[in-house]
Amino acid sequence: MISSVHNETIVSLTKLHTKKHRQLSGLALVDGEHLVSEAIKANALNHLYGLSENAPFEGVAYTQVSEAVMRKLCQTSSLSKMVGVINLPNPGPLGDQVLVLDGVQDPGNVGTLIRSALAFNFTSIITLPGCADSYSAKVMSASQGAIFKCSIHELSCEEFKKVSHKYHVLVTDVHHSKTLDEITFKTPSMLVLGSEGAGVSEFVKSLAHERVRIKTSEVESLNVAMAGSILMYVLNSLKG
Amino acid sequence: MISSVHNETIVSLTKLHTKKHRQLSGLALVDGEHLVSEAIKANALNHLYGLSENAPFEGVAYTQVSEAVMRKLCQTSSLSKMVGVINLPNPGPLGDQVLVLDGVQDPGNVGTLIRSALAFNFTSIITLPGCADSYSAKVMSASQGAIFKCSIHELSCEEFKKVSHKYHVLVTDVHHSKTLDEITFKTPSMLVLGSEGAGVSEFVKSLAHERVRIKTSEVESLNVAMAGSILMYVLNSLKG
Repeated sequence: MISSVHNETIVSLTKLHTKKHRQLSGLALVDGEHLVSEAIKANALNHLYGLSENAPFEGVAYTQVSEAVMRKLCQTSSLSKMVGVINLPNPGPLGDQVLVLDGVQDPGNVGTLIRSALAFNFTSIITLPGCADSYSAKVMSASQGAIFKCSIHELSCEEFKKVSHKYHVLVTDVHHSKTLDEITFKTPSMLVLGSEGAGVSEFVKSLAHERVRIKTSEVESLNVAMAGSILMYVLNSLKG
Repeated sequence: MISSVHNETIVSLTKLHTKKHRQLSGLALVDGEHLVSEAIKANALNHLYGLSENAPFEGVAYTQVSEAVMRKLCQTSSLSKMVGVINLPNPGPLGDQVLVLDGVQDPGNVGTLIRSALAFNFTSIITLPGCADSYSAKVMSASQGAIFKCSIHELSCEEFKKVSHKYHVLVTDVHHSKTLDEITFKTPSMLVLGSEGAGVSEFVKSLAHERVRIKTSEVESLNVAMAGSILMYVLNSLKG
């Protein structure tokens, strides 16, 4: 059992709360039983730390820790019973239906978009600069574990430009665009969603083959996660 | 200018952070310039408190307050420049497209659902027991002011039963249900969404004329706000 918050392993694990250290180490932390069990199913779990004396899952490297240590490891305000260390996966090749997030800042939005993306077969996800980090605690929590079944590609705008030319690039835009019921779905396709405040950047818009909006009454725009989920649902249905 | 946090008016206004006092007084607080301006447009603003010497909006009863007082009035972690007092509206009659929230607990979900509801003409909203309070700061913030353009009806299950029989009641259910592309839209209609954990309660399910689910791959369920937004978008489109 580790009871000291000054323990060397614990100190180095708490550094994983920052994106910089996640990237340097190739590791991240997952909070709570649900996410830990999803990580185990996805074969991503590396080590588990928990409050109970006995390992809560079989066949998993396990260390008991004190409540004080758990508070250090936890990234949520409530105290989890367990925190797992996962290996950040190497994203596989891009699929036929790609979701592109261009500066989506709110971690709740990024996480729920990943959850909806998995539901509607947009299992390749590109995050461009300005997005909340996919492996932050809030994003993983909002994804409800869907993140372990998607491949996440963090790209620069230049890298995106290179990979995008093989795809039909559909960009959301409330102006100068067709409504969702006017467009036809082409495959392979990329669907680009923009930041909460400013939408899709001009650079990314310049790569678009088609611009799409959702017809709404009264309100000018929807929450980006709502808009993205509606678009992915409809596009995935059009595929037939 | 009010500079003391012990000022009688300020003390009674801070009580509006709780639902109980909002209901007793028929008042609520709105944080920040965007919500305040939406409240003014909706003719709901009663009084405005702000940091600036001059009233930021014309024709509005205004009082300058100190930063310490503003911190007391604010319900968000960041310091707003202004906080408005609004009169809770009397909800009008129910319309033809009604959104029913059965125990949706997360204020972010309730707020974004209200925003999507306005976008897709579900401007009458019923909240059943267990829902986050519609006039809490987080709900109003997530609604982006859409709440001022919808009529919100907080009903008991018995009251809901009475009003529901005039409607075609469509309930979300991942089991024993038709998929969204299999149903036809009847009007007047009520769309019922359930709580994040348990879905729609058995009592409310017993009042359903039809059960609906969204076809998904891999994940069993979607975030309730995503599911609700997709359903409202498609149902509103079906209406033609």
